[in-house]
This record gives sequence, C-alpha cells and structure tokens, in this order.
Amino acid sequence: MNNLESIAKLIRYYSLVMSTEAGSGHPTSSLSAADLMAGLLFGGTFKYDLDNPRYPNNDRLIFSKGHASPLFYSLWAAAGKITEKELMSFRKFGSPLEGHPTPAFRYTEAATGSLGQGLSIGVGMAMNAKYIDKLPYRTYVLLGDSEMAEGSQWEAMEIAAYYKLDNLIGIIDVNRLGQRGETMYGHDLSVYKERVSSFGWEPIVIDGHHFPQILTAYKQALQSKDKPAMVIARTIKGKGVSFIEDKNGWHGKPLKKDELARALEELGEINKSLRGEIAKPDNAYPSVRASEKAKPVSFDPAKPVATRHAYGTALERIFPEVPDMVVLDAEVSNSTYADIFKTKYPSRFFEMFIAEQNMVGTALGFSIRGKTPFVSTFAAFLTRAFDQIRMSQYSHANIKFCGSHAGVSIGEDGSSQMGLEDIAMFRTILDSVVFYPSDAVSTEKLVEVMAEHKGISYLRTTRKELPILYRNDEVFRTGGSKILKSNQSDVAVVVAAGITVHEALKAYEVLKAAGILIRVIDLYSVKPVDMSTLTQAASDTGAIITVEDHFAEGGIGEAVASALAGHLAPVYSLAVRRMPKSGKPDELLDYEEISKQAIVNKVKEIVKGFKQSFRKK
Amino acid sequence: MNNLESIAKLIRYYSLVMSTEAGSGHPTSSLSAADLMAGLLFGGTFKYDLDNPRYPNNDRLIFSKGHASPLFYSLWAAAGKITEKELMSFRKFGSPLEGHPTPAFRYTEAATGSLGQGLSIGVGMAMNAKYIDKLPYRTYVLLGDSEMAEGSQWEAMEIAAYYKLDNLIGIIDVNRLGQRGETMYGHDLSVYKERVSSFGWEPIVIDGHHFPQILTAYKQALQSKDKPAMVIARTIKGKGVSFIEDKNGWHGKPLKKDELARALEELGEINKSLRGEIAKPDNAYPSVRASEKAKPVSFDPAKPVATRHAYGTALERIFPEVPDMVVLDAEVSNSTYADIFKTKYPSRFFEMFIAEQNMVGTALGFSIRGKTPFVSTFAAFLTRAFDQIRMSQYSHANIKFCGSHAGVSIGEDGSSQMGLEDIAMFRTILDSVVFYPSDAVSTEKLVEVMAEHKGISYLRTTRKELPILYRNDEVFRTGGSKILKSNQSDVAVVVAAGITVHEALKAYEVLKAAGILIRVIDLYSVKPVDMSTLTQAASDTGAIITVEDHFAEGGIGEAVASALAGHLAPVYSLAVRRMPKSGKPDELLDYEEISKQAIVNKVKEIVKGFKQSFRKK
Repeated sequence: MNNLESIAKLIRYYSLVMSTEAGSGHPTSSLSAADLMAGLLFGGTFKYDLDNPRYPNNDRLIFSKGHASPLFYSLWAAAGKITEKELMSFRKFGSPLEGHPTPAFRYTEAATGSLGQGLSIGVGMAMNAKYIDKLPYRTYVLLGDSEMAEGSQWEAMEIAAYYKLDNLIGIIDVNRLGQRGETMYGHDLSVYKERVSSFGWEPIVIDGHHFPQILTAYKQALQSKDKPAMVIARTIKGKGVSFIEDKNGWHGKPLKKDELARALEELGEINKSLRGEIAKPDNAYPSVRASEKAKPVSFDPAKPVATRHAYGTALERIFPEVPDMVVLDAEVSNSTYADIFKTKYPSRFFEMFIAEQNMVGTALGFSIRGKTPFVSTFAAFLTRAFDQIRMSQYSHANIKFCGSHAGVSIGEDGSSQMGLEDIAMFRTILDSVVFYPSDAVSTEKLVEVMAEHKGISYLRTTRKELPILYRNDEVFRTGGSKILKSNQSDVAVVVAAGITVHEALKAYEVLKAAGILIRVIDLYSVKPVDMSTLTQAASDTGAIITVEDHFAEGGIGEAVASALAGHLAPVYSLAVRRMPKSGKPDELLDYEEISKQAIVNKVKEIVKGFKQSFRKK
Repeated sequence: MNNLESIAKLIRYYSLVMSTEAGSGHPTSSLSAADLMAGLLFGGTFKYDLDNPRYPNNDRLIFSKGHASPLFYSLWAAAGKITEKELMSFRKFGSPLEGHPTPAFRYTEAATGSLGQGLSIGVGMAMNAKYIDKLPYRTYVLLGDSEMAEGSQWEAMEIAAYYKLDNLIGIIDVNRLGQRGETMYGHDLSVYKERVSSFGWEPIVIDGHHFPQILTAYKQALQSKDKPAMVIARTIKGKGVSFIEDKNGWHGKPLKKDELARALEELGEINKSLRGEIAKPDNAYPSVRASEKAKPVSFDPAKPVATRHAYGTALERIFPEVPDMVVLDAEVSNSTYADIFKTKYPSRFFEMFIAEQNMVGTALGFSIRGKTPFVSTFAAFLTRAFDQIRMSQYSHANIKFCGSHAGVSIGEDGSSQMGLEDIAMFRTILDSVVFYPSDAVSTEKLVEVMAEHKGISYLRTTRKELPILYRNDEVFRTGGSKILKSNQSDVAVVVAAGITVHEALKAYEVLKAAGILIRVIDLYSVKPVDMSTLTQAASDTGAIITVEDHFAEGGIGEAVASALAGHLAPVYSLAVRRMPKSGKPDELLDYEEISKQAIVNKVKEIVKGFKQSFRKK
C-alpha cells in the first residue's frame, strides 16, 4: 500500500514549484484535487501499464478541468515517469508539458482546457470498452465544479446513463471557487447530488481530503451496476497552503518566489525519492474483425439519388472493409440516412439524441481508442459543436463528419435548418479535409476516401435528389476536382460544388446555345483545393466564377480567391448573400443568385466587359 | 370564458390543412401541444395586446419547438389576427409564415427551429422584465421533450433558477416521440419532474389534453415565488386524429389529401367563426434613463494597455450614453475586463457562469426587448455558441460580442485557450461587423461604434499589453482602416490587424534600415473591409501581404484576397498554419511566421522576385 499522504504532499510540492518556475498556471486548482487523484492512481483502484500508455486495457484518466495540469503532470512524476527537472519545463516553448494537457505529453488521453468536454470524451471511451472492444478497463474523468454549468456536461450525463456506462466514473472537485468568484452553488454538495442522481448516475458524496473516504468512494463506484458513478467531493482550493486556501483571487496564479518558500515551509519535509505504485491491468485485447473488400459502387445512371442518401448507402457498403467503424447520429438518422447503416449493423450504430456537443466529444473518445467514427446531423446543427470540433484537432482526432441539408436548396424548412456556414467552420480546422459531392457516385467514393484518411474530414450533403454525373468506376481523391466541360475557347470557368454543379451544367447549355463556351469544374474537394486545375483554368480563360450554396465568407469563393491570390485572375463569387427564407429549392437558388440564371447573367456580364475593354483599346 | 375545446379543434383543423396545402411541415408535433397552447392563450392566463405585438408589457410566447409552426400560426388565426387564406401561404416563397417561425411574422418573438434555444431566449426576456424593465409581463416557452436532450436547456434552467425568474414558465410537450423514434424517456414524466426539480424549478406534472388540469397548471405556475415553473405535460403526438396518434414515422409529415379528408371527418364540425379572446395586459412602461454624453477617451500615449482592458474601460465609459446597455460575461470577467463595468454598474451586469450557449440566447432575449447587450468571454469559447450566434441573425439580433485572448499571442496557456477561428466564425454572419483593434484608443472608439450599430458585431481583443498607436481624438468607423506608413516607393503593403500591426511596424523599421520601404495598413475593420484603401494600395505597390494571428481560412487573408479578387494584385497570407502550442508570445509569433521577422522575410522574398522577373526581361 502506498503512503498516500506522503505522495499527495510530493504532488503538491511539484504542482507549486513547477507553476512558480513557469510564472503562470493553476496551482490552487491542482491542490484541491491532489488527494482525490493521489487516491485514485496510487490507492489501488487505477490499473495502468506505465510503460505502455496506449495499451488497450489500461484504465483511462481524463482531466476535464485541464487547467489543473500541474497536478496532472505531477501525478506521472510521482509515478516515476517524469523527473522533477522535466517538470520545470512546464509551459515553456517546445516542452511536452503544455499549459493545458495535450497529446504532446504521452500520458495525456485527450487535449482539454475548454471546459465541459472531458466527460463526453470519457463517454466515448467507456462506450468503446462496453460495446465495441468489450474490455474491462474503466474511464475516470476529473471534473471541476465550475464547469458543471456547461450544458455539454449534462448531455454527457444523460447519454452515459442511457447507455448504462457502469465503467465510467466522474469525480467532481467541488472547491467552491471559479475563476472570478464563487460558483452558483459554492459548497452546497446536495445540489450536485440531486442533479447527478436525477440524471441517472450513482452519486457518492465525500470529503475530498479524507483518504479513507476517497478510497471507499472509488470502491463503491466500481460496484455500481448499469449506472455510471459520480464521486462528488468537497474540497478546498489551494488545500495544503494556509494562505491560499479557500481564498478568492488565487485562480490561475502561481506563487511568487517568496510565497513559494513560505508554502514549502508549511508543507514540511518532502520525500522526493517516493514513487507511487500503479498495478498493471489484466492482459486483454479487443478482438479485431478481419477486413473484407467492400462491394463496388453501382448506381443506375438514369436514376437521381440524393447525396445524403448515398452517404447512408456508402456507410453500409464500406463497413466490411473498415472494421473499426462506428456511426453516430443526433436523432436525425432518417434524414441524414445514417439509418441505412443502423438497420444493417445496429451494434455499431449509436443514437446520440439531440445533443451534438456530446456526440462530437464521444466520437473523439472512440477515435482516441482507435475507432473510425462517422458522425452525422444537419450541417447547420454541427455548428452546435464547433468548440468540440475545434478542440478535437488538438487531440489529433480521426473523425469523419457528415452535415446534411446543406444550403438554401433544402427549401421550405427555412433558414434555421440551412447549413450555410459549415464549410467555413470546417475549413478553419488545421489540416482538415472538406468534401462537397454533387452526385451519389462521388459521395460514395468520397466516403471511402474519408474512411482511409487519418484526421478530421467533413462531407457536405444535399437534401434533394440529384442526377448521377459520374461513372461507377470514376476515381475521386483529396485535393482533386473534375473538369466537366472544357473547350479551347472558354470565356470563363465556373467553379461549383454540390448542388451548384448542376446549375453550372444547365448554365453551360444555355450559354452554349447563345454561342458562349464556359469551362465547368466540380470542385468536390473544397479543402485542399486542386491548385493545378484552378491555375490552369485561370490562365486559360482569364475569369473565374465560383458559385456555392453557402454564405460568401469562408466558403468556396474565398477558398478559390485565396488559392489564386498570387495568380492574377479575377474571381467572381456567387454565394448566399440575402437573408434566406422558406420556398421551393429553385426559387431560393434564384433568389440568392446562385442558380443557372445567375451564372448565365454573370458570364454574359463578363463577356460584355471583355468586349468593352477590347473596344477601348 | 372561451370554449377551449372548440378553439382547440379549430386550431387542429388549421394545423392539418395548412401543412397538407404546403406539402410539408409538422402537423403531429402541432397537435400534441394544441390543447396546451389553446389553454394558455385563451384560458385567461396570457395577457397580450393583439394590435401591438411590441408592447413592452405583453406576455411573451416563444416556440422553442419551432417545427410546431402550424400550431403557432394557427393560434393567431384563432385569435382573429390572420385568416385561413393567409394560413394557406404557409412555407411558400415570400410568405411571412415560414417553415419555422421567423420575425417575418409579426407575432414571432424570436426565430426558432434549431432546438434547445428558446428557453435561453426566454431567460433573457424574463431577466429583462425582472431586473431591467421591472415590468410584470411573463414569458412562456413551449418546449419539446426531444429537445430537452440539448445541454443548452439545462444551462438555461440553472441560470433561470439562479436569477429566481418566477416570471418564466416553461411547458414541456412530452409527446414521447422524436423525429426517428422514441425519446430517451418516452412517457416517463417522473424523469423530467426529478430533473426539473433538481435544477431549482417548480415542476407541475399534468395531462396535456385535459383542460381543467391545463388551466390549473398555469394558475399554479403564476403562484411560484422566486422560482421558475415548468409545466410537464403528458401528450399524444398527432392527438385528435386516430390514425396518426402516438405513431412513429409521422414526424414532419403532412397528411396526404385523402388522409386529410379522413382526419377532418374525425375532427367533426369546426366552428370557423370562433375567435378566442385574449385579455390585454396592464398599462405599464419601463422607465427610461436619460442619455448623457460619455466622457472622452484619454490614454497616456506612453503607457501600454491591453485592448481587452480597454474593452472594460470603454463599457464603463459609454454606459451613461447608452442607457439600454446590459453586460453579460461567462465567468471570466476578470480576464475580459467586463468586471470594470460590473464594479461600477452591478445592476446592469449579469454573471452567466461557464455556459456560453445560454449566455448568447439570453443576450438575444435582451436584444429583442430593446436592450443593447455586450457579451464577452474568451474568443475561443464563443465557438461554443456558434449555433446560437447563427440563429440570432434570423431574429435580427442587436448583440455586441467581445472575444478576448485572441490568437497564439496569449502564450503559455496553449492551444485550447487560443481563439484562432473566431474571425472566420463571425464573418459568416450576414451583415455582421468584425473589429480587431490594435491599441486601447481604437478599442475604446470601436466599442462606441458597436454600441451605435444595430446588428451583430464582434470585437476581438488581445491578452497582452500593447503600445498606444493613436491620438485620443482619432476617428474610427465601420469599414475603415488606417494607413500607418506610406511612401511613394513602397514595394509592398502589409495589411495587419490587432497584435500584428505592431509586428508590421517593427518590420517597417527593420526594412527601412535596409533601404526597403513598405506601406503598413491597420485593417481594424475586418468586415466590412476598406475596399478603396486596399485597392489603392494594391495598385500603388503591386503586392499585398496580410498577417494575422488567426488560422488562414476565413480570416483577414481571405477577406482581403476575396475583396481584391477582381483587382489583379497578388495577396500573400501570413497566418497561423502550424499546430499551436505553449510558449512565450514572441516565440509563438515567430513559430507561426506571423512576427516581425516573418514579415521582413516575406517582403525581401517579394523584392527578390521582382528583381528576378525584371532581370528576365
């Protein structure tokens, strides 16, 4: 049995000195949870192979309150896996010990620091253990009391209870104080208890500085059947150093050198040679299904299919080839068509209800545990989870997003349901891939590409049925595009994607009848863009028109304009610029001037401009 | 007393026929709540001046379950304010009766349709009544059971209880069925009761088709003291038409013509001449404080000030001139410096805790009630509320957002705390204004501009102290910019904003010493951009370099590239393109190649390119 009191003291020592050395950080938020975490890791509950952090049957530990990073790093120092000297690099450029935990440090499961996200990630890991890997590992999430105000926490709570995740244990460090003062409930633990219980969890209320209570709580949590357990611990912010204990104004503040000296004097003798023992987990691996070649795509070229529908058929089709796949949807699987997959493979489909934030966090948990999650809802409603999407990039997420019902072309449902900013949102993610297919064949092929791609990718689908444009054996790739119409004497190139490809093709026919030839490019890969095709087109024709069913900012027009910014070709952007409303799809495409007619008008305007400038010369 | 049974029948009739006529819409979700809403509006509880929807003391009604729009519109038809013929324009292009309610219809308080947002808007209206206008009006919010899965609901719940909003009444229409099947709890009302109660609300459980219970519930709700009340009603989806009652597969589906005929036969005789009476509210107006001229800006030009700090001083300074102002912050007011305002005017400041979604919804509620809300948190955490921000544009919101801690220049805290996609996010909003000031003077002036502007605006502030660049009497405007350095022989123009303006000025000095002159533009108005200054600069110098502490996509580089896309000048973008990490601000600016040195390098590269292309000729 470890000497928990002494280990906790060592951890407090580390937390204090490393933050003072850094000149910033959150020692008081670390001190409040030091006993809880020492008790968890070194009290016999936690099972972990310290030499193999990615071992599938390790217990998982997520610091949802990521600002307690001094504590987090100190734990692994106390376990002997990082030296005091290394701790002193905390928050310095190039150190793996960043201000908030990131995977740069090998014991970090997921990057945290935007509050209220860790529990969802834990839900994903616990669902993975219970339903996919079928391993006995447990997932522990350290939560702050302040962050319990985030709605995302309650999404995670309800879903964890719904899926009976008795392998998920939350620990709320109720230290009473937030950043700028007291939380809504201070030290009233009964509020947390009642809420946690009403959300279907087993609440365990304790004194978070009393080791016997702490150890009993974890034992009790492990006994919970069919219910996740929440340890609700009364703690003192800054615990262990009298002059910062339970005091407002000490959030995110390291001790000054002289204050540190006083603090260390109070702490008393530190046994720096102490190392906490952590038991290894049982030897267990998930069984892995063999991969089988997926059937080929086979659409009837005469029969229109909605790209959202092809997303569903693609998921079902490729599953044999992608054994790690799981599919999540936010209560709209009959609209996104993820339900095609669900019907065929119900055990790999997870209904996440109308709680998009938690859905994305859960997908991240699956991703970290080696799965390939596909996540779908209306494109508009993915904006609900922008913070989770943003944060997932810092955990090197491998998540495939699908947003259906893109653009004004959804029609009668009106503006609230129209995804008009989703391309802009996903383009901001570092190294993300953004696809926007215009027919069922390209959708199927791009879903395949997404499954193979490691990272964050996004597929934008359209509500209404669209004609098939491509042969079933056509090849699509990240950074590719298709030239659908091309002639020697093209006066302009129309760069379209998704539904506007069809408008561009209609415009081509109208213009051709009027003796005007245009090039039509299907820019199905919106990020990265096909630079060589675009620059060639720009130099061949001298004028580029982008047309998109998306707001002008951050969309296809800006992607093309910035890609060609050094290439001296004018880029004209047709995009959604008027307050969208209800109506028939075609009425709305016309209204927003992104329809066939708008393209025809713009091309004619350009041709007229050429002629005029020619006459001037 | 109105004949509620007959009115409810009329409302059911309207809901059915208008959705069948439209060929889309949500009749079954309307029928479940028809009795609840007939009872509310025509049962003596609701007070409203039908001829004056904007009357300050009207009770407010928000359909958070916006898809029940047939019911919503039918209510006002039953009140005699819209004809059956007008109802038949539902979902048609140009009709005010959009698929989901928008302010195009004059009785709509707020656009809804993205679920889980109405209660937050109601919180804002109720807070306005209780704390600002001090009027006795009440705010009613109709909620779906499916949407209670959204975390944002529980944010609204906790904040409403915290602020003791006994003038806010929620009504959950527990019809058991979501879009694609049963909700998590079906008809188990005890789950809702327990949760609602644990979040500090008064739960009132009833049969939602039993008028005596409905009327008693509203009376009871009005009695609640210091607590908001939630009517939890057991209802039947499709109630009143036997073959669609409580059946899965009928979400968002209108009846076909023949089905409608059968349904109407079941409904029996409809009294179309019936009109429900609604009592007018008491005559009461909010007292309005007179506006006083704000004091002028007066910064010591020698003393650096963080722009986030200037945001706080600006709020405090302009309040006398902006009597409608309220300030909201998400538990970081000592970082955003909104606490400067709070200290001086505590009754106009609202602590919204770490619950950004609800903060934005609440701000929208204030905005609709004529207030001028300023809303602040870290720029990164505003992404949490993207869906609420997106939706607020459809309610013609007048909200002023401030995101602090923008960019990698925050330093040691690391990626989770860095706003690097906020410009992209706010630029997507139709007609939004995006400001990014580089010193305290411009910050103060731009906060003034924001207060005067009607619409959605965003101010991006920087963590660290920055030198003062402008005189205290300098003028700033929407769509403006400042040329800080300009010469006849500029080889390039550097377009910067915020912290990179200072890097550009340092680069100017380095380059000048090397005999190279550049133009430096402070593009403080990122949207709209100053087209004339940019185009002039492009034609004067032939090369544009944008430099920004933001991801490349959707930021300043793309704003400039798209603005100049027709003007044939190359635009080079320096932006955050590498995975950000912890470190000193200057180290990180260098690492991301957006520092002085990166600008110097890029200018020299361009100059070298010029010379080479000159030699070739």
